[in-house]
Amino acid sequence: MVDIQSNEIEELVEWLSNISEDGEGVTRLLYSQEWIEAQSQLKEKFEELGMDVEFDAVGNLFGTIKGTDEPEKIIATGSHIDTVVNGGRLDGQLGILGGYLAIKHLIEKNGAPKKSLQIISMAEEEGSRFPYAFWGSKNIFGIANKEDVANIADKDGVKFVDAMHNAGFDFLETAPKHNDLEAFIELHIEQGNFLEEEGASVGIVNSIVGQKRYDVVLKGQANHAGTTLMSYRKDTVEAFSRIAVNGIDKAKAIGNPLVLTFGRVNPLPNTVNVVPGEVSFSIDCRHTDQNALNEFTAELEEDMKRIATEMGISIDINLWMDEAPVPMDENIIQTIEQVCVENKLNYKVMHSGAGHDAQIYAPRVSTGMIFVPSIKGISHNPAEHTETSDIIQGIEALKNSLEKLAY
Amino acid sequence: MVDIQSNEIEELVEWLSNISEDGEGVTRLLYSQEWIEAQSQLKEKFEELGMDVEFDAVGNLFGTIKGTDEPEKIIATGSHIDTVVNGGRLDGQLGILGGYLAIKHLIEKNGAPKKSLQIISMAEEEGSRFPYAFWGSKNIFGIANKEDVANIADKDGVKFVDAMHNAGFDFLETAPKHNDLEAFIELHIEQGNFLEEEGASVGIVNSIVGQKRYDVVLKGQANHAGTTLMSYRKDTVEAFSRIAVNGIDKAKAIGNPLVLTFGRVNPLPNTVNVVPGEVSFSIDCRHTDQNALNEFTAELEEDMKRIATEMGISIDINLWMDEAPVPMDENIIQTIEQVCVENKLNYKVMHSGAGHDAQIYAPRVSTGMIFVPSIKGISHNPAEHTETSDIIQGIEALKNSLEKLAY
Repeated sequence: MVDIQSNEIEELVEWLSNISEDGEGVTRLLYSQEWIEAQSQLKEKFEELGMDVEFDAVGNLFGTIKGTDEPEKIIATGSHIDTVVNGGRLDGQLGILGGYLAIKHLIEKNGAPKKSLQIISMAEEEGSRFPYAFWGSKNIFGIANKEDVANIADKDGVKFVDAMHNAGFDFLETAPKHNDLEAFIELHIEQGNFLEEEGASVGIVNSIVGQKRYDVVLKGQANHAGTTLMSYRKDTVEAFSRIAVNGIDKAKAIGNPLVLTFGRVNPLPNTVNVVPGEVSFSIDCRHTDQNALNEFTAELEEDMKRIATEMGISIDINLWMDEAPVPMDENIIQTIEQVCVENKLNYKVMHSGAGHDAQIYAPRVSTGMIFVPSIKGISHNPAEHTETSDIIQGIEALKNSLEKLAY
Repeated sequence: MVDIQSNEIEELVEWLSNISEDGEGVTRLLYSQEWIEAQSQLKEKFEELGMDVEFDAVGNLFGTIKGTDEPEKIIATGSHIDTVVNGGRLDGQLGILGGYLAIKHLIEKNGAPKKSLQIISMAEEEGSRFPYAFWGSKNIFGIANKEDVANIADKDGVKFVDAMHNAGFDFLETAPKHNDLEAFIELHIEQGNFLEEEGASVGIVNSIVGQKRYDVVLKGQANHAGTTLMSYRKDTVEAFSRIAVNGIDKAKAIGNPLVLTFGRVNPLPNTVNVVPGEVSFSIDCRHTDQNALNEFTAELEEDMKRIATEMGISIDINLWMDEAPVPMDENIIQTIEQVCVENKLNYKVMHSGAGHDAQIYAPRVSTGMIFVPSIKGISHNPAEHTETSDIIQGIEALKNSLEKLAY
């Protein structure tokens, strides 16, 4: 049964999106004035619903409806309140507003749950103000490191710790408060175009990809583009191109869910009439299976070295990110799938190609994720959009899953 | 017989190199204070040798030893006095100093020539201050267009015409003064590594390459590098890489003297975790044979369109430079080769992959060029260098060729 209404979610998205820095899209950076205002207003909204509401030390906001039978067991949902600069109206905050609506409808229909139901508006996920991501969820489990943020600052030179203090929060090295969670389900936009291409409204995430990122530098020889015969060249753009074609061809042959991206390419001197003597470029490679990811990148590294060496070009390969894939909980996946079938929701089981708060929860709590489609896959952009009818299906999947777990 | 001495050329290069803007290497931009100083001091030096010396309207400097029998027929040599920013000590000015030394030794040994001998210090060739190249040589033949420089300015906003006026020169639309030239031979550094690789001291240029330059823009779709499966991508860096590998493979298969360079590559947004939605890049393609150049670039254009179209990527190909190859004069080539053989100079006949003043002369005057090696092919750089022993062989080739033509 679908009972979430279009205007309910549309009004909430409109309301929260307006608590933003001026400018295109939504900009709400960690510990900014807009961030403080958004968390404060969410706190009021949660209280109006009869929730017990509290902030933790760093600014994660928790709204809880106490369970009647096992109040110490918490079934939680939520997502992050921060955004990228010039972000869209759905990334992060949809998971808070959708979770709020799901719980609101459940208690209006069923009264108090047996286990506690909790909505969490997490302080930070994007890493868009300071060079640190998952600050919110990592603090919930006591795995954020005080030293990691001791010396970091934003682009204006404001220190992380000063921004936190000015927003009224602090880093307390107490034991994590929220090891009382029994389950966590995050609603989020897909940020890809899989659901749209498949014509589905709901994605049930079975895994978040593992991810490796590299910086690679090729050094050959800068030469005059007219006077240097082809046989005398050590052309690093040629070497890069051979590396990219070789890698992409192999990635396509292996197929989904492996993805490989050469997103950044910076030749030197980068001018029409000089054979480029140096190129630096990035590699982003992701797969849901750790072994498959390791095997592919090991082969890619060997291929890169071989191609460069054959051309007399030196290569420096720097792996600077190496995150393991994170599987979602089998029971949670089954629960979500069951409610999708029961409620005739149009769903696909899929992996997440992007990182999410859920990946911090999953190793510690039974965790699941529900996606709704991103039109044309657009995200981190004011044009980010999901049809309201699809958002409603996503919230219904969440609501009915929370009901199965908490009632 | 070799009679040019090491110290003669080394002292001249040292002397003229010091008339430079402060900083690394030699910087002497058109109509700058250093340029005025260099031309003025060269004028004095030419006068000391008993030459008739004059500037033309735009600042080309001519030093002439009148011929005894046919003074109206002029056998000329020279090159350009301007440099790139942070250039080397040889590009351009070696042709002036070497020509001066060649004429000096000829008149010291033989007295006045039968035909007139002339050294030309050309005002400008590089296009390094203003976006206009070959200003000097084009004015010599009355083919520079007043309108071309009417509205151009340097990077500081100084207008071309104001800089010219301030240096004491002007653009006069009179008939070209120097259609009296019978022959012109330019001495220049190779700016490539052919002579060094071949172990030769002197290059006799038989042709200056034709050259096409393109700007190409590929437009696909920017997408999240994690959430967009390979099959849904319109990755413009992938398309660029396929275009580059395909083009370079075909260019290598065709072989010398064809060269193909993808020197500039600018992806957007150029960041690790976004599939690049747009790439702009440059192509520089050169060959000494016009038909071969046309055939290759026509195939390259078709290949680029096919590769882009197959990937669902739009392509915009803009040919913005299309210069025809310029052959040197057969008789002058033979004359230079003959004196190299007679004087046991270590030479190779070769083409020029770079543009030179000689290409403006060649369609109008019997023209030749003599190259000396550039160590490691380095040029337009303070590290530009040629062994003095090789420079001497180059000046000897020039001197003996001028002798054959003028005495």
